[in-house]
Amino acid sequence: MSLINETHDINLTSWVSSANNAECDFPIQNLPFAEFRTKGTDEAFRGGVAIGDQVIDLVKLSHLNIFTGDAKTALDAASESTLNTFMGLGQQYWSALRLALSKALREGAQQQKEIESTLITQADIEFSLPCRIGDYTDFYTSIYHATAVGSLFRPDNPLLPNYKWVPIGYHGRSSSIDVSGQTFHRPQGQTKAPDADVPSFGPCKRLDYELELGIYLGKGNALGDAIAIENAENHVFGFCVFNDWSARDLQAWEYQPLGPFLAKNFASTVSPWIVTTEALAPYRTSWTRDENDPQPMEYLESAANREQGAFDIQMDVKIQTEKMRSEGHSPTRVSTSSFKHSYWTVAQMVTHHTVNGCNFMPGDMLGSGTQSGPTHEEAGSLLELSRGGKEKITLSNGEQRSFLEDGDNVIMRGWCEKSGFARIGFGSVESTVLAAK
Amino acid sequence: MSLINETHDINLTSWVSSANNAECDFPIQNLPFAEFRTKGTDEAFRGGVAIGDQVIDLVKLSHLNIFTGDAKTALDAASESTLNTFMGLGQQYWSALRLALSKALREGAQQQKEIESTLITQADIEFSLPCRIGDYTDFYTSIYHATAVGSLFRPDNPLLPNYKWVPIGYHGRSSSIDVSGQTFHRPQGQTKAPDADVPSFGPCKRLDYELELGIYLGKGNALGDAIAIENAENHVFGFCVFNDWSARDLQAWEYQPLGPFLAKNFASTVSPWIVTTEALAPYRTSWTRDENDPQPMEYLESAANREQGAFDIQMDVKIQTEKMRSEGHSPTRVSTSSFKHSYWTVAQMVTHHTVNGCNFMPGDMLGSGTQSGPTHEEAGSLLELSRGGKEKITLSNGEQRSFLEDGDNVIMRGWCEKSGFARIGFGSVESTVLAAK
Repeated sequence: MSLINETHDINLTSWVSSANNAECDFPIQNLPFAEFRTKGTDEAFRGGVAIGDQVIDLVKLSHLNIFTGDAKTALDAASESTLNTFMGLGQQYWSALRLALSKALREGAQQQKEIESTLITQADIEFSLPCRIGDYTDFYTSIYHATAVGSLFRPDNPLLPNYKWVPIGYHGRSSSIDVSGQTFHRPQGQTKAPDADVPSFGPCKRLDYELELGIYLGKGNALGDAIAIENAENHVFGFCVFNDWSARDLQAWEYQPLGPFLAKNFASTVSPWIVTTEALAPYRTSWTRDENDPQPMEYLESAANREQGAFDIQMDVKIQTEKMRSEGHSPTRVSTSSFKHSYWTVAQMVTHHTVNGCNFMPGDMLGSGTQSGPTHEEAGSLLELSRGGKEKITLSNGEQRSFLEDGDNVIMRGWCEKSGFARIGFGSVESTVLAAK
Repeated sequence: MSLINETHDINLTSWVSSANNAECDFPIQNLPFAEFRTKGTDEAFRGGVAIGDQVIDLVKLSHLNIFTGDAKTALDAASESTLNTFMGLGQQYWSALRLALSKALREGAQQQKEIESTLITQADIEFSLPCRIGDYTDFYTSIYHATAVGSLFRPDNPLLPNYKWVPIGYHGRSSSIDVSGQTFHRPQGQTKAPDADVPSFGPCKRLDYELELGIYLGKGNALGDAIAIENAENHVFGFCVFNDWSARDLQAWEYQPLGPFLAKNFASTVSPWIVTTEALAPYRTSWTRDENDPQPMEYLESAANREQGAFDIQMDVKIQTEKMRSEGHSPTRVSTSSFKHSYWTVAQMVTHHTVNGCNFMPGDMLGSGTQSGPTHEEAGSLLELSRGGKEKITLSNGEQRSFLEDGDNVIMRGWCEKSGFARIGFGSVESTVLAAK
């Protein structure tokens, strides 16, 4: 079943001329959602949709009373100070609003003059989290990451026996998730050197980023009601780029037997825009499982998942040190990867998470896990790039890094492109490491 | 420093005569908070305080305009549909409201007639969760539980090297936490028998309870601001009894390397009343660390924590099977324990959790971890009582259990008592296992 509709047509152009630039992250085929306000003010945050270098203020758009039916219901919800209500409405409403926005922004749209009054330049805004994230779960879907990290922790047994059967995940902390621009102090904690008799306390020495996608749940499910894989994507509102910061030395000492804790919950940063699942329809791709690997259990298997369960979302990571900033050096790209390498699909994550009856709420978030690709250059963390801290990578100004240093700014981007369809961008998530307090 | 004040005086009696019964959970020295409404109605939930077999409706009390100053501010907040605002006000406001309520409920109080109009019988009410639990973290503070469970999973290495240094904890799921009375279907999922080549899918065969305390955070901290141990308890609003249901067979297969996930997030159940930290002042007790064990690191150490960091809260577990209910058999008590056995104190949990800068929000909850005591009879789970499922326990009607069966009702209680002080009860948390869907 094709998920492509008229909103994906590459020939659509917008009367917002900046949206028609082929390099733009936010063409009329994208239409991602965020929560914003005018920069430096104490205005209330409200929903917005990106178009070119502009944002539509959904509160103002709602006041114009142009949309009707499901699109109007959806618009009113999306104009609130968090997107949770809108996300909870479900696919029918999300699609209705997308179609209405697409029509209203097309070249020749009748309401152009009125809608122009709702636009604000992206350079003039600031963001909050797009929604209240009740629960956050981090998955571990890149087998390349799992194998590389596993071989550092357990050289003789890098990939555990459950990996190819279970979409491994664990619960994360919601309170410390913030939006791009977040700064945080280098975490302190207990670590134990391999040759030390006892642990010591101090600032993390192996601070790392993790290149992930954030996956936002839309409509929830009641406790006890598993979500079948055929229905899983109806619960997935959209995606962002997600930096799941990690303190590797804290993790190594604390994580047995109950998993990562203080190594993870000091900060996690999302990109501001949620690119909807519908916008990504052209970038769906088939999902296969190597014939030598176990095939998924029945509850994780469907024809649609095989046919188009994967998403070809490209991602990269750049680092700009404090010295680079002061000397005017551009950030250095240190790796690039794609979500299409994921060993498990989004639908499989959703279905597995709920198969025991666990309930989702609108706005809950799943992390994809670090999206490392098959080659070393596609590694999604410094732990992998530096081979466990043993090799330094060299930045464009000659500085070297095995792990992050104070003042380092990490920038992650996501985008989709292929012939015959408009390029879809996620924008970026960036954040700077401050010295330990 | 003594934390005892006039509200703890054993000689106080209330004009609500049921509160003066020595066996009562809710004497005037307790005054716990919940969210309630009249049973079977769609009234809005609002804050309430237990006194004897009655509840004070805080909305009605607020309308009487009897309290002033901090007590009035606190009362208005506590009458909302969740306790989060009240919990976020901090110790000064919690204490002011407690003192005002204590005075207003004492025998001879001037406002007795007016306040009588705000009472409703506990038999006529139903509860919601007392607050919005943003994040839930489960600790693992009973060394007896950790050793017993560890010896089942890792006979040669039951207690991992980090246990005596790190208050081990992991993030849990908030969405599936509900209040006493919760029912849930036996979870389904992947398990792998030790002698099987591949995993299989089906209903959990080793369903268990965990006897825990829930610890509610009050005032939060900003991201990046660690909470010093001297200040930790100012952030702790109160306690409940908490059943952290566990699917042992799911856990054994899924938990490596990132910790328990679907084995835990299908349901967790709290008792409705939050007993405040202040109410528990008479039951504070000294905390010691065996001299042969590592002493806590500096950030986890304080004189006050040594002197009165522990809480002597007694707890027990009863089971009533479906057959017992139909035959009129009372529940069988299967174990009893105390929180005083905890290897780490609440203050140490709070300080450790935030030492890396992690932020708490009002209403966040910590689980104490299963509170098994030093003897087999004090085990806080069936996994321990049945020695990994190898021995069945016999209930009072002759039925036997190694793990829970469909229809089993599990009842947990908490209470404090000692000479010279009023008995303080937590009430109970109970919940029934339904068949897999």
